[in-house]
Amino acid sequence: MPEPPELYAPEPGDVHARRAAALREVLHADAVARDEAGGQPLDAVRALKASGLNAAWIGRAYGGEGASWTSILRVVREFARTDGSIAHLYGYQHLPLHITAARATPAQLANWFPASVRENWLWSNSGNVMSRTSTARRVGTHWVLDGHRPFSSGTHVADVIQVSWDGDGGRYTAVIPADRDGVGIAHDWDGIGQRQTGSGTVLFQGVRIADEELLGRPGDEVTPFVSLNSLLQQLVLAQVFIGSAQGALAEGRDYTVRESRPWIHSGVERHTDDPWVQRRYGGLHIRVQAAQALAEQAAAQLDELYPQGHGLTAHARGSLAISAAAANVVAGEVGLAVAEEVFEVMGARSATRARGYDRFWRNVRTHTLHNPAEYKKRTLGQWLLDGSHPQPAPYR
Amino acid sequence: MPEPPELYAPEPGDVHARRAAALREVLHADAVARDEAGGQPLDAVRALKASGLNAAWIGRAYGGEGASWTSILRVVREFARTDGSIAHLYGYQHLPLHITAARATPAQLANWFPASVRENWLWSNSGNVMSRTSTARRVGTHWVLDGHRPFSSGTHVADVIQVSWDGDGGRYTAVIPADRDGVGIAHDWDGIGQRQTGSGTVLFQGVRIADEELLGRPGDEVTPFVSLNSLLQQLVLAQVFIGSAQGALAEGRDYTVRESRPWIHSGVERHTDDPWVQRRYGGLHIRVQAAQALAEQAAAQLDELYPQGHGLTAHARGSLAISAAAANVVAGEVGLAVAEEVFEVMGARSATRARGYDRFWRNVRTHTLHNPAEYKKRTLGQWLLDGSHPQPAPYR
Amino acid sequence: MPEPPELYAPEPGDVHARRAAALREVLHADAVARDEAGGQPLDAVRALKASGLNAAWIGRAYGGEGASWTSILRVVREFARTDGSIAHLYGYQHLPLHITAARATPAQLANWFPASVRENWLWSNSGNVMSRTSTARRVGTHWVLDGHRPFSSGTHVADVIQVSWDGDGGRYTAVIPADRDGVGIAHDWDGIGQRQTGSGTVLFQGVRIADEELLGRPGDEVTPFVSLNSLLQQLVLAQVFIGSAQGALAEGRDYTVRESRPWIHSGVERHTDDPWVQRRYGGLHIRVQAAQALAEQAAAQLDELYPQGHGLTAHARGSLAISAAAANVVAGEVGLAVAEEVFEVMGARSATRARGYDRFWRNVRTHTLHNPAEYKKRTLGQWLLDGSHPQPAPYR
Amino acid sequence: MPEPPELYAPEPGDVHARRAAALREVLHADAVARDEAGGQPLDAVRALKASGLNAAWIGRAYGGEGASWTSILRVVREFARTDGSIAHLYGYQHLPLHITAARATPAQLANWFPASVRENWLWSNSGNVMSRTSTARRVGTHWVLDGHRPFSSGTHVADVIQVSWDGDGGRYTAVIPADRDGVGIAHDWDGIGQRQTGSGTVLFQGVRIADEELLGRPGDEVTPFVSLNSLLQQLVLAQVFIGSAQGALAEGRDYTVRESRPWIHSGVERHTDDPWVQRRYGGLHIRVQAAQALAEQAAAQLDELYPQGHGLTAHARGSLAISAAAANVVAGEVGLAVAEEVFEVMGARSATRARGYDRFWRNVRTHTLHNPAEYKKRTLGQWLLDGSHPQPAPYR
Repeated sequence: MPEPPELYAPEPGDVHARRAAALREVLHADAVARDEAGGQPLDAVRALKASGLNAAWIGRAYGGEGASWTSILRVVREFARTDGSIAHLYGYQHLPLHITAARATPAQLANWFPASVRENWLWSNSGNVMSRTSTARRVGTHWVLDGHRPFSSGTHVADVIQVSWDGDGGRYTAVIPADRDGVGIAHDWDGIGQRQTGSGTVLFQGVRIADEELLGRPGDEVTPFVSLNSLLQQLVLAQVFIGSAQGALAEGRDYTVRESRPWIHSGVERHTDDPWVQRRYGGLHIRVQAAQALAEQAAAQLDELYPQGHGLTAHARGSLAISAAAANVVAGEVGLAVAEEVFEVMGARSATRARGYDRFWRNVRTHTLHNPAEYKKRTLGQWLLDGSHPQPAPYR
Repeated sequence: MPEPPELYAPEPGDVHARRAAALREVLHADAVARDEAGGQPLDAVRALKASGLNAAWIGRAYGGEGASWTSILRVVREFARTDGSIAHLYGYQHLPLHITAARATPAQLANWFPASVRENWLWSNSGNVMSRTSTARRVGTHWVLDGHRPFSSGTHVADVIQVSWDGDGGRYTAVIPADRDGVGIAHDWDGIGQRQTGSGTVLFQGVRIADEELLGRPGDEVTPFVSLNSLLQQLVLAQVFIGSAQGALAEGRDYTVRESRPWIHSGVERHTDDPWVQRRYGGLHIRVQAAQALAEQAAAQLDELYPQGHGLTAHARGSLAISAAAANVVAGEVGLAVAEEVFEVMGARSATRARGYDRFWRNVRTHTLHNPAEYKKRTLGQWLLDGSHPQPAPYR
Repeated sequence: MPEPPELYAPEPGDVHARRAAALREVLHADAVARDEAGGQPLDAVRALKASGLNAAWIGRAYGGEGASWTSILRVVREFARTDGSIAHLYGYQHLPLHITAARATPAQLANWFPASVRENWLWSNSGNVMSRTSTARRVGTHWVLDGHRPFSSGTHVADVIQVSWDGDGGRYTAVIPADRDGVGIAHDWDGIGQRQTGSGTVLFQGVRIADEELLGRPGDEVTPFVSLNSLLQQLVLAQVFIGSAQGALAEGRDYTVRESRPWIHSGVERHTDDPWVQRRYGGLHIRVQAAQALAEQAAAQLDELYPQGHGLTAHARGSLAISAAAANVVAGEVGLAVAEEVFEVMGARSATRARGYDRFWRNVRTHTLHNPAEYKKRTLGQWLLDGSHPQPAPYR
Repeated sequence: MPEPPELYAPEPGDVHARRAAALREVLHADAVARDEAGGQPLDAVRALKASGLNAAWIGRAYGGEGASWTSILRVVREFARTDGSIAHLYGYQHLPLHITAARATPAQLANWFPASVRENWLWSNSGNVMSRTSTARRVGTHWVLDGHRPFSSGTHVADVIQVSWDGDGGRYTAVIPADRDGVGIAHDWDGIGQRQTGSGTVLFQGVRIADEELLGRPGDEVTPFVSLNSLLQQLVLAQVFIGSAQGALAEGRDYTVRESRPWIHSGVERHTDDPWVQRRYGGLHIRVQAAQALAEQAAAQLDELYPQGHGLTAHARGSLAISAAAANVVAGEVGLAVAEEVFEVMGARSATRARGYDRFWRNVRTHTLHNPAEYKKRTLGQWLLDGSHPQPAPYR
């Protein structure tokens, strides 16, 4: 007698993905309750740090594991199968990590990365992008930062944060401890999904920043390598969406097998014998597979290009931008579709708060709004029509 | 300078729809908070009763207004534009009202309907359909009902309830006060949407039922007229879905006009100048219009047939079943699509619990599960292929 | 034993629709062969004229029947169920008929309309819109027109044609016999669908036009009434699309019932017992119904407004523009979907040239390109967002 | 100034794919004319043979190139970008080639395969599957085959054909020259697409077959390896669909860049600057990419499993069946969508017979009917729900 297969098992050869799958089981235990609670996922972050995955990306030279981007992105996907917030926090910390790797001096790296590994820092990006709501002035030998930043995901549980402001000569970026005096968390995140990402406001009141904490200087060229940041973002989100789809489908499947009853007029004994149920699950699974295949391709392309560092050409970066945009759009569409449609074949009794299956839809719906598919499709179309790659910029 | 138009205004000539639109404004004030709270919509039901709409369907002979089905269904739609639960409770009470009109003796009608008008009874259906979880036995001159019934929407705020059980000679149905000794509400409804419908369990512990409370006798023929019940259900739900779509779109439009910011790479000054935003709103609106046109057609067909009473032929009933199924399916699909997609053009800041725009998706997703589109499409296809109408039964 | 129902029967009370349904049977006999042949539908036009439908729209005062727009549009739909070309030619002739009714002098009307009825003229529009490829000069007491006009549907079989050119003081429009010296047909229409519409080039070589043939004068105000033209176009096309969908579905249904075999792994004895086949037909039918409901609403709105003539306000015209755009978009989408998907449940043996079922897809695909849904959706969205109606112009 | 990129370029390291891309250019020259003509693609088959690709799959031991399945499938895709018929004929010949490789004796292989390489045989499958319309009887030392077989693609241009019949002890299969006495081609293929596949009837009138031409014996076990046949079929078709999508998109892109005019109300100077056009091309491209990623994965899985030969387990075969079904379904959906929607952004002038862009839709629509997505989705769903793999059978 065949048994329901394990769906979306981690690559056997990928130790990080496998570790993430194990941690996912832990996160799963109270995922629904934490979604309801919102706020800070303190225990979950503790478990993440204990898993050794938190610092896995940092290079072996600094005591990390030098995990590939492919692995990191799979970890994001694993987490998203039950907890989109942890997936987001984990994935997004690699944006400041990348920026630091790309822009920090050897001395800074020697200072920060080993400490990050040792103390298991969770990084977060609190630098403004779309709104310019914070400013810094020079006071003696320091900078003093004031203002606030919205949508500052992860700052509420981070150990170190990246901040930025516009000043003489351009844009300043710095890395500081999250508990620096004057850094405050508004705890005002109120999203319908991604409830524990803390994507609310971080407040800066007279935050002192030393020159040694600056990443590069304002005039520094933003190389194609540095600008990979916005592609990392898209690739992380793509995995959040795919993981959510996989979670929704796998949890839905389990529910269906275990609990769903045949429809009153179905004429079948078991709900799973209904051609409708089979077709729907099959159809959703196919879409998940296609999205994953595309995302894995883009991750592999990133891994191939990344070692080129600042030597990365604009053309190569542009080519990856095309792949990342495609992966992101497909992933978002699949995430929404699966999270919505799987209910249909689970049935009316599945749609309860206690079950919490709706968190997948709320998570994907929330996060797909931050980088509209419309514009990524246009970007892709522009390239297809005239060969131009998107100008590196936030979200593209 | 043109202004955003009023969307989906009630028919000027339909006093009930217009009254409902006014009441909708009242319900709107705390609709988000009530969605969050769940439980019993006591104030909202009070407002409903005060509006005079509650008993509008009951015939003039009994002191009611004899409102048409078209009007009643429009009232449902109006309510659903902000509060799917009230829409559901209001609409669904017409199922026991219809059954009573169809099966009660003249004496019973003379007893119940004037009282219902005078005291503004809210009716509810607590009769089992799919599960047979309650039974009654004869004790002296009474029946005594024990058991429970799941998905018993509205019983938690009803004044009178319809109950049923299987006994000698078939199925018994009765109408009793909701506060009859032994009737208990489990308050266990925990849906992700339709939060105040109280669609949980009603408990029966030694509930005494008199012969005078029986609707007809078990052996009575279930005429095509009586079996309109399951079509009423589909038509009510269709309006819940369409109203939800209209609410999501109209609230979304208002938010977009008032608060949405243009996308960072849009190149437009106002978000509403973005062709994407225009196209999306236009496209969603079209679907809502098509769904409404179909639902109005089916309502008109019902109004045309209803006066035939028990003279209604199986063929006429079947023909209405085809129309009702079509209207219901289109409505459900539109409801889900609009409630999900409108977020895309509202933008990231709209997806908060405080705004509560996600209630539309949760409401439609919850309720579309109770009568799968799959089976209605099959029903329609069967008719199209061989001319057979669905056998009257629950949900068809 | 139930029989497959008659699908999309004409309204019993609409004599024109019923007559059209009868003529449709005649057109059906060689519809596939004529689609393959392309060119001029001479016999079909002869049959159209014999049916009395050709001049039905012309008012009773002129000897016509004064058919309502609703009826005319239903006739278009009936024809499109088997022959999109005749549907197009028939429908489109009402654009110059409307322009003539709106702009001609009483003397012109008294001259043209009775003759049109008596001699069963087929009208056609050969006036440039998007391209300005023809010009006229004044020669003595006449105008002399030279140039050409692309996409000149119907000119190849028309009796009278409307022509236009830009000259002193603005745009000139005239009505002339199609056999006037110098009018030539390039017979270069080569569309993948709508094969007999003759939508190719008409050539003008020294075509003499008398002042008495001018419709109004260049400076004349283009009233909202006159500009109904582009809405008529959209409404005619909507019916071509819906009729095509109905034809595809009805022919598909008949084929399925008569000839389709169950799929090898279906486990059912008759193909029509396959839940897949039932669901697909049901789902397609629903979409057709919704499109038809919307189109009928728009037609009724046109009939209500039309008698206002030049008194029609811009607002009322704008409101109809919104309805017409919605009906057109839904119709186009449904037409494509049905024409493509019905093959799936007919099966592999149905997809032959001899059967010609693909003409429906080719017809709808061809004609939906002439007025992109994208722009109509934007138009609708703009109205929804700021209340502005589309500026009257070709295609809106 | 950037230029439109080369779309879907063959893998640089895949010599067969690159050779196919070159041949595709040749096939492209008269692809539209051949689509219109139907019949036998004699010149195209000659060019195929001249390219050296025809026998590329046959192992090096026999003088072939031992091309991987991945390469063969890419060749199919390349051809389908302009000529779905050649793609089909080329791909499908690998079904009898596989069966021969799997079932022939060493002596037969030593006989047939070198000859096939040397003489560039085109193989074809003329063995019945769904219908049993031919029979053979024993006459002396030979078999004599009579009857016919429908949908016998490729037989009209094949050099060798595989035939089969039911006899004592089960099913017989044989390989014979296509010009064997008594083999006749009805030339009755009349599909709306795949016009030169000759998928009509092959007739058998007293066709003599020697024992040495039999593949195995009726009682032979149909190992999972042998039953890869129906998966090869699905994988070949998937590539026909993806190649068609790529052809439609790439030809559409070129047309759009070169010839399309901006829409009258677009406000842009170049059609390619319209956000609509960009979005549509981007969105279609993404879908093509996802389909290709999935198909490539399945091809790689086949290449990994194939060397196991008759040692291939039922489980491994089942696992590939899941991948093949997924790839096939996605490919078919993408093929239809791209082939239909690309017209929208090419515009009205593109939809002519002379251009022939509609052949992509007709090709995909025709061929997707031969193995309904519905059943492949059900198959996938069954596996997902209970872990069962499809029983090897035609089409699964």
